[in-house]
Amino acid sequence: MITFENAFEHVLQHTLDLGDETVALLNSTGRVLSEDIKADRDFPPFNRSTKDGIVIAFSAIEKGITRFKVEGVLSAGMPQQKLSTHNNCLEIMTGAVLPEQADTIVMYEETEIKNGWASIIKTPKKGQNIHRQGTDEKKGAILLKKGTEITAAVIGVLASVGKKDVLVKTLPKICVVSTGNELVEIHETPLPHQIRKSNSLSLASALEKVKITPTLLHIADDKSIIEKELEQALSKFDVLMLSGGVSKGKFDFIPDALNNLGIEKVFHRVAQRPGKPFWFGVQKRKQKVVFSFPGNPVSTFANYHVYFLPWLKKSLSVENKKQSVILDEPIQPHPSLTLFAQVTTQLHEGKFIAKTLKGNGSGDLVSLALADGFIRVPQGDKEIPSGTILDFIEAS
Amino acid sequence: MITFENAFEHVLQHTLDLGDETVALLNSTGRVLSEDIKADRDFPPFNRSTKDGIVIAFSAIEKGITRFKVEGVLSAGMPQQKLSTHNNCLEIMTGAVLPEQADTIVMYEETEIKNGWASIIKTPKKGQNIHRQGTDEKKGAILLKKGTEITAAVIGVLASVGKKDVLVKTLPKICVVSTGNELVEIHETPLPHQIRKSNSLSLASALEKVKITPTLLHIADDKSIIEKELEQALSKFDVLMLSGGVSKGKFDFIPDALNNLGIEKVFHRVAQRPGKPFWFGVQKRKQKVVFSFPGNPVSTFANYHVYFLPWLKKSLSVENKKQSVILDEPIQPHPSLTLFAQVTTQLHEGKFIAKTLKGNGSGDLVSLALADGFIRVPQGDKEIPSGTILDFIEAS
Repeated sequence: MITFENAFEHVLQHTLDLGDETVALLNSTGRVLSEDIKADRDFPPFNRSTKDGIVIAFSAIEKGITRFKVEGVLSAGMPQQKLSTHNNCLEIMTGAVLPEQADTIVMYEETEIKNGWASIIKTPKKGQNIHRQGTDEKKGAILLKKGTEITAAVIGVLASVGKKDVLVKTLPKICVVSTGNELVEIHETPLPHQIRKSNSLSLASALEKVKITPTLLHIADDKSIIEKELEQALSKFDVLMLSGGVSKGKFDFIPDALNNLGIEKVFHRVAQRPGKPFWFGVQKRKQKVVFSFPGNPVSTFANYHVYFLPWLKKSLSVENKKQSVILDEPIQPHPSLTLFAQVTTQLHEGKFIAKTLKGNGSGDLVSLALADGFIRVPQGDKEIPSGTILDFIEAS
Repeated sequence: MITFENAFEHVLQHTLDLGDETVALLNSTGRVLSEDIKADRDFPPFNRSTKDGIVIAFSAIEKGITRFKVEGVLSAGMPQQKLSTHNNCLEIMTGAVLPEQADTIVMYEETEIKNGWASIIKTPKKGQNIHRQGTDEKKGAILLKKGTEITAAVIGVLASVGKKDVLVKTLPKICVVSTGNELVEIHETPLPHQIRKSNSLSLASALEKVKITPTLLHIADDKSIIEKELEQALSKFDVLMLSGGVSKGKFDFIPDALNNLGIEKVFHRVAQRPGKPFWFGVQKRKQKVVFSFPGNPVSTFANYHVYFLPWLKKSLSVENKKQSVILDEPIQPHPSLTLFAQVTTQLHEGKFIAKTLKGNGSGDLVSLALADGFIRVPQGDKEIPSGTILDFIEAS
């Protein structure tokens, strides 16, 4: 049995780099950029009006002119025009191109327009209300770096530089495998000794958040079937995510089957609760990774967040940001196990506070549904006092 | 022009209740439950082994017996068995049903098994290692309340009680309308006075996070076309989300067109930056709501998060949780406008800290891509010192 720290390090040493792929812009939200994005022209691409009002040549103001004949109206989307004489003005709308021979915009609120003439009622500053060409970014500048996570605001930048297709990091193809003869389908009515599948659905839902649609596979507790099905799955997927089949029981054939298929065990059993029987293995040559989580819901859910999500981030070359939280009440650590305790959190007065949930052990799905995540409680003998800062792992 | 507080209150007074709909379990992540979910049987449904080991009758221990003949092996998924005599034991796997006539489980680590006989090397406690029927939840108990947001853990609970279809709150049908002759499609090369569409794509990406797939519509700046297209959109959608067309410019026909179509203006122009020209209107009888955001990217993005998302949550009867953040450096408020300043945030030592981003005004898409959200800076004259706690609005 190895420590959590050790197990975590091992998992992060076995990331996969699956290369890049091109996806349509609106399918790229939540993915990771695999190319630098450059400005294809200056931003803004022209001297752009930031107000609705009139546009003038400031030299007229210097000559004492405050009343201008209105030559016309410029709106966003019109090609650049020209102010014919310094004695005139043009009306101009937000987003329109600054006309030639003009350099200053006065907003409507500071003018009076009547019978085709505009009077200025507040002396402008030269060059005001213009968003200058290239002041946000120069053509060729890197706007977004490779490795950026694609958010809604990033989509806006990508659209503005014409990326209708985007190069992103390829996500691993994942098969979520449930095992156990006690499991029946959701639509079935279980006999007294049976229960419905829930782990694989919970994992599928969590994976949706990281833009992965897994394939779900159920395998009966039969050694030869397990080996055959796992072999097929390994040929098609980059990652197997199993739940069940890794405790010490006589009917847990998974580790043997994986071993026979050339998956090298990296570790089995971690000094942690929940999730002690967690098994992790790899096949380096073929770039396969197997997360075999214990069968009970809380263990699987905790291990997914504690190990798989950081593994995925590192595989996609995205930084794993550590989160910390303030403990709201004392907690008793375990003398030899790292605990992942379910908590609810709140952001109060700028402080991020965790309250532990009183779950009924690793079988209790319902308390898990109330939790915002887990705190990591390092092993120890002494009670950890309220106010202590601990690592926080957010639930999907 | 009304205050932010006033505008926000108005928006929340005009929520829509669009009823319920049934969706398949794996399509329900991120939706809101519209029914209470009850336990269809006890949880766990039987006295369940929590360890791999042997199961005995404690009365044997009381009689001084410590060595038991092994009768067989019980695994998860087997119907309940019976221990034939108190002098014997059964091997039992995690998840298996406690057999009749037995009441105590001793894990393998505390036994020695040889030649079909198991010896106990550590005296057990009566009833240990059993997760008792109904101790998590009794049959009929409400496990999840109507109004719960469906997370991955909630999916697990729904699966376990057999909800292959789930009743959820219906989401509004949304049309995102872009206007402005200066806009060209992403795949086009804009002329010097043109720019590519970005707001509508950014909004579509943000809406994906709340499980809404909007329809995108572009309308040219032509009064009669605008009115016709908006009329059609109003007949098909619950919410129109416009960007552009609400400043005071001569070419901004939207408010007039909406008025002609029976949309009652609730307000136009809010004392805020960015997003001053925000226009909000409703048609109560037909349950239509129109968010008309200003055309520049930062205004649209800020208004979406400040107004639309809380409106959506309230429409779905979900609590709007306020978030607050600690200011990392002093900030100068505006004497008469509420500011929404772009910030990056970090969770450090349990404290949630915001650093303001130096964006180049409301046209700067690139700085927006770096922001984690906005802080709300109330109007005022005095500099707000570092360490002050302000409301935080998270970006999608």
